[in-house]
Amino acid sequence: MAILTKRAQICDEALEAVAHMPTRSLPTLMGGEFGSSLSDADFMRIAVLLAQKSYQEGGCPIGAVIVDNLTKSIVGKGHNTLVQEDHPYNHGETSAIRDAGRIDFSKTTLYTSLSPCDVCATLLYMRGFSKVVVGDVTNASGNESLLQEKGVEVEILEDSVGIAQYAKFREEKPDQDLEDWQGVSAVKNSRVL
Amino acid sequence: MAILTKRAQICDEALEAVAHMPTRSLPTLMGGEFGSSLSDADFMRIAVLLAQKSYQEGGCPIGAVIVDNLTKSIVGKGHNTLVQEDHPYNHGETSAIRDAGRIDFSKTTLYTSLSPCDVCATLLYMRGFSKVVVGDVTNASGNESLLQEKGVEVEILEDSVGIAQYAKFREEKPDQDLEDWQGVSAVKNSRVL
Repeated sequence: MAILTKRAQICDEALEAVAHMPTRSLPTLMGGEFGSSLSDADFMRIAVLLAQKSYQEGGCPIGAVIVDNLTKSIVGKGHNTLVQEDHPYNHGETSAIRDAGRIDFSKTTLYTSLSPCDVCATLLYMRGFSKVVVGDVTNASGNESLLQEKGVEVEILEDSVGIAQYAKFREEKPDQDLEDWQGVSAVKNSRVL
Repeated sequence: MAILTKRAQICDEALEAVAHMPTRSLPTLMGGEFGSSLSDADFMRIAVLLAQKSYQEGGCPIGAVIVDNLTKSIVGKGHNTLVQEDHPYNHGETSAIRDAGRIDFSKTTLYTSLSPCDVCATLLYMRGFSKVVVGDVTNASGNESLLQEKGVEVEILEDSVGIAQYAKFREEKPDQDLEDWQGVSAVKNSRVL
């Protein structure tokens, strides 16, 4: 029996626990009416709370959640680990896809707290995602049209908490932000200019 | 003192041990004249032997090696782990980049046993690689021009052992080959058609 079963329990504290719980252990935490009542905005907030977890670890605040279109269950989630794992390209999307494993992504929707980079956008259409929901096109954008051209449905559903969190991070750590997008060489080049 | 120190020791058996040794432990295995004498074709063969390791594990035979342009030392290597890690996108290139960590890839060359997919090609130019050497444009090709357009030097250096190995794999496991490129949904669609 899960702890979170009622619709009325949906709140930021509950969604934060969902964000932190390993995906395969989620049935111990949530189920019933709670699980079936989660909205698009709730899934996006879980992605934002994963981003917050990463920020608290000293990393880049970007998170993502993958949801089964039919059952609405979370099948993968994760956050950027550039700093935490010394990982040159693990963004929110790649982290969530890695967590999901070898499933049919055409039956799923990915919620990302920040507009996808070129690599992640390419991965999203190459793995056949049916839909991508983007939570922040204020701090970054540009690949939404690429995804649409490749047949992926795109929805913009901005989350103000996530937008403020990313803007704060970028102001605090501009080099880390740039490295996460274009690598160490881009940071060096920006210093030369 | 390393075991492999002389140029005369360069042979497939020695390169196979190099392929299998964890990157950070390579100084226990190789050095001196052996290390400084490795040619482009030798680095490519190491990538092919990493691909062979993956094949022997039941995985996709694709490997990659990243070499520092100045010192010619191996700074990252790896192979596809679709099967071994239930990993939906870990190709030879992503595996080697992950292994290298947060370094300046503009000072390095990546040797890949098979022509890069769309995702890996995008990652290669987004991380600013100076050069990519491709060992097989017979079984797959197409993104060499994209890399060149983005300023990455591309060299084709086909390895007949790697080409034969990949052709054998594709004949034995066509679905695994397709999933590795375009995901589970592409395999399902290919069965419907």
